[in-house]
Amino acid sequence: MSEQPELTVQGWGPGSSRVATVAEPGDAAEGSLELTRDPDLATALPKAARRHLAGELGWEPRPTPPVAVADIRLAPSRLPADVHDALVALLGADHVRTDREARLRRAGGKSYLDLLRRREGDASDAPDAVVLPGSTEQTAALLALCAEHGVVVVPFGGGTSVVGGLSGMDPDDRPSLSVDLSRMAALTDVDVASSLVTAGPGMRGPALEEALGAHGLTLGHLPQSWEYATLGGYAATRSAGQSSTGVGRFDDLVAGLTLATPSGVLELGHPPASAAGPDLLGLALGSEGALGIITGLRLRVRPAPRARLYEGWSFRTWADGLAGLQRLARHDLLPDVVRLSDPDETRANLLNAGGTGARLLRGVLRARRRGEGCLLVVGWEGLPQVVRARRRAVLAVLREHGAARVGRRVGESWRRHRFAAPYLRDRLMDAGLLVETLETAATWTALPAVYDAVRTALQRSLGRPGKRPLLMTHVSHGYATGASLYVTVLADRDDDLPLQQWLTAKRAATEALLAAGGTLTHHHAVGADHRPWLEREVGPLGVEVLRAVKARLDPQGICNPGVLLPD
Amino acid sequence: MSEQPELTVQGWGPGSSRVATVAEPGDAAEGSLELTRDPDLATALPKAARRHLAGELGWEPRPTPPVAVADIRLAPSRLPADVHDALVALLGADHVRTDREARLRRAGGKSYLDLLRRREGDASDAPDAVVLPGSTEQTAALLALCAEHGVVVVPFGGGTSVVGGLSGMDPDDRPSLSVDLSRMAALTDVDVASSLVTAGPGMRGPALEEALGAHGLTLGHLPQSWEYATLGGYAATRSAGQSSTGVGRFDDLVAGLTLATPSGVLELGHPPASAAGPDLLGLALGSEGALGIITGLRLRVRPAPRARLYEGWSFRTWADGLAGLQRLARHDLLPDVVRLSDPDETRANLLNAGGTGARLLRGVLRARRRGEGCLLVVGWEGLPQVVRARRRAVLAVLREHGAARVGRRVGESWRRHRFAAPYLRDRLMDAGLLVETLETAATWTALPAVYDAVRTALQRSLGRPGKRPLLMTHVSHGYATGASLYVTVLADRDDDLPLQQWLTAKRAATEALLAAGGTLTHHHAVGADHRPWLEREVGPLGVEVLRAVKARLDPQGICNPGVLLPD
Repeated sequence: MSEQPELTVQGWGPGSSRVATVAEPGDAAEGSLELTRDPDLATALPKAARRHLAGELGWEPRPTPPVAVADIRLAPSRLPADVHDALVALLGADHVRTDREARLRRAGGKSYLDLLRRREGDASDAPDAVVLPGSTEQTAALLALCAEHGVVVVPFGGGTSVVGGLSGMDPDDRPSLSVDLSRMAALTDVDVASSLVTAGPGMRGPALEEALGAHGLTLGHLPQSWEYATLGGYAATRSAGQSSTGVGRFDDLVAGLTLATPSGVLELGHPPASAAGPDLLGLALGSEGALGIITGLRLRVRPAPRARLYEGWSFRTWADGLAGLQRLARHDLLPDVVRLSDPDETRANLLNAGGTGARLLRGVLRARRRGEGCLLVVGWEGLPQVVRARRRAVLAVLREHGAARVGRRVGESWRRHRFAAPYLRDRLMDAGLLVETLETAATWTALPAVYDAVRTALQRSLGRPGKRPLLMTHVSHGYATGASLYVTVLADRDDDLPLQQWLTAKRAATEALLAAGGTLTHHHAVGADHRPWLEREVGPLGVEVLRAVKARLDPQGICNPGVLLPD
Repeated sequence: MSEQPELTVQGWGPGSSRVATVAEPGDAAEGSLELTRDPDLATALPKAARRHLAGELGWEPRPTPPVAVADIRLAPSRLPADVHDALVALLGADHVRTDREARLRRAGGKSYLDLLRRREGDASDAPDAVVLPGSTEQTAALLALCAEHGVVVVPFGGGTSVVGGLSGMDPDDRPSLSVDLSRMAALTDVDVASSLVTAGPGMRGPALEEALGAHGLTLGHLPQSWEYATLGGYAATRSAGQSSTGVGRFDDLVAGLTLATPSGVLELGHPPASAAGPDLLGLALGSEGALGIITGLRLRVRPAPRARLYEGWSFRTWADGLAGLQRLARHDLLPDVVRLSDPDETRANLLNAGGTGARLLRGVLRARRRGEGCLLVVGWEGLPQVVRARRRAVLAVLREHGAARVGRRVGESWRRHRFAAPYLRDRLMDAGLLVETLETAATWTALPAVYDAVRTALQRSLGRPGKRPLLMTHVSHGYATGASLYVTVLADRDDDLPLQQWLTAKRAATEALLAAGGTLTHHHAVGADHRPWLEREVGPLGVEVLRAVKARLDPQGICNPGVLLPD
């Protein structure tokens, strides 16, 4: 493989970012607090891609660097002394931190809005202190303590929320704690026969996969934030990974979990399945810290795949591509990874692709008298004979829908660079760009209308004379009943009102996708950013049910009050 | 097929029964109210089976017929006149019934306890009236009316609960209504592209499959109660069907539903998937009428299978069989139908099997120098090439675990007789037998201990000098993480204290399976019978969360107060 020409087919999405990355606890250096490294766009984007972007967007690359870390404004900690002392008595002095660096590192997540605020030197959303509990019992005790003293708690895993999940906003403006779960990050039980493992909420994907690898197992949950995001965060936000079409959403991989709440500890889930009343595990999934803190997870794992096959295909049109996927979906034939890019994303990816590989791919498409069309990346993992049989069934359908094979190199390149895109964001922002993503899902029937509605809304909202946004969309997850849409937005930033520019566009896109039948969010969660629309999704009585559950588990409303439920 | 000798491989479970069956509404005759037909056991069980049972159980066949229908005791209706008039104004006089037959037909379900009570002439659990709403709006209005007047409502679908789901018990002893959903039984929308259909809660399996067949579709949910049970009941009880290993539990097939509650109407679910907060749809599934009444369902369907292949295999031992299934499960290779009988069930099935087919099968086993061993029925449905590929992968694993193929005839016989077993129950009860089933599920690791614990508890509880129960167990559903166990219990009935005999045995079995790591119920639901153990399953705080949800949706506690939540 290493002798073949390199081809880089990247996405552009966030999900994580290098800004103020939190290193493993206990690291002496804990990584750099620099807001950006390697700010030279020229080394990051091929010239053709920069030219394409400038032409598409009406964008003039310009230096718009973030403020220096030393200049970020941070208010003094408001944690009352008696609460501080009680926390030290509970957790030990090493695990109660009020220093500037600890607080800055847990301020906000990785949304464009979060990054904008911090680049401008605003860390007003930083917690008043950071605590690191080491067990379910310590977490439950700290929640009881905070409930008693009126201190807000915001769980912190990887810090990769892109929907304001760490905002810590509180209508009563009480002091707030960031509850960092990185001390609870071990694999504590492996039941190979039952394909079940038990792990701490602070464990990250790479560490988990390494530990599982020793047993010949894998979890297979690979969102773009995989290098930083944690198991507890996946569960709290109902994450989906890049292979979720095959292995299932994170919801499907959670067989049980422990939720510490101010009112006590819930042990939920009974694998393999139960009919003993309503599904309480499903209430903890997606609870985003608003009902309590996840302190342990029982996960469904599988044997490490013996075969892995990724390849690229090209459809002539977006409609052809959707029709082909829908057909596969109906017959339960979808591969484990399915990623169909629309024409704008396909073109941008080809321009962004470096090396002779991209030239080769463009050559293949030309030789077949095709335009750039729509690129499909498909992947299978598992037992060799099953991978072969599943693939054979798929190829026939793809060909019937006019797709042409463009080879394994494209698929393998996507797989190797699957976590790379977020690293580009800081450099694009440094050069004056708005960069953000949004996502939704809809039934196969509603999907084309949702796609059109979102694009039209964003084009109208972000278009100005001589300027227009670049909207790159792909189907990222397929289901029998529909699929998700993932939209990456690039636009020339409004340097005067950058927050307002995106808030307006996001509002327009959200209203449009809801009206067309899309869901508010397919895998980014509600956070602070989607709160105003939760009622549109579940109805006023649905919101009231959630409020009733929260009132029972968190009567003082200290659990992440800035997310999920509308004011 | 019709020229081949007939082989009958039956289970023995209930799930439905012919006792007091409710016919389609609008039928002039509405079927017979006779409690049993064809009570001659000789025509129902082969002589060898009767001899086997008598020997195993220490049972002397004796006539213990039910009382005549006319002698069943029913209290006068307590529905207040003003409520009756308001209901007539809302629904029309035809849809508010207080006659003896309407009330008797909705008294209780099909558990052994329910049948015992009615056979003895006791219908004290009958509702005071039966109402038949025709829409979500009428159902919501009737719930509001009942909340205002303090009238209990018990939804009625197929009447096939085997856990006392229709008990209607109320600590405040208020009048009760049976809300029969048979008028809301239409397929109202078919979205072929999205594999989604919308249907009413009162629709039964055969009617749904017939309507779907016209579109080349199937739901594929086939519990033993299929001929009578309704879609709303499946959702309210978290049902699993005989093909659920392949097509998924009913939970997995519900993309959305409408729940009418005394506080308003909830529209839940957003296909294909959403991360917009906790899963409220999962709260409505399994709510058993205690949170409101399901008035509409959006279901995930699939193309009608083009190929279907069922076959039988034989393992030497139960442990071999479990190990083989576990291996298939780990690698996601389980067939759509998986049914592994333990030695006692295998032997009973062979004895119960009529015709030359059974002799042939016994001949095959003898020729291979095998005892009866453990019979495995497996089945695949779908696209021919996929069925072939999946089967090939399975055969290798089965052979590695020492299984021998016993052919398609056994598989096809099981498929044809899959709904037959319940029809045997009444005749067995007429002849002095205790006949009941119970079920659980556990991880692959815990499953052998759960199996042993349940058997030991039942043998101890039901054994008396000269008498012992026959316990026939099978794995009915497989998952990556574990499997279900379905136990059919036959014993000589204690004619003096028949209710007490089973209550004691059931309590012992439940305590034993919970202690060994099993779930309270895998697909029968909580009902009235499992209520005392719900707290063992979800913990005291879990019960409190459910109470908080109920208090928000049903503040007067009128919704099926006798089920789900402990007193």
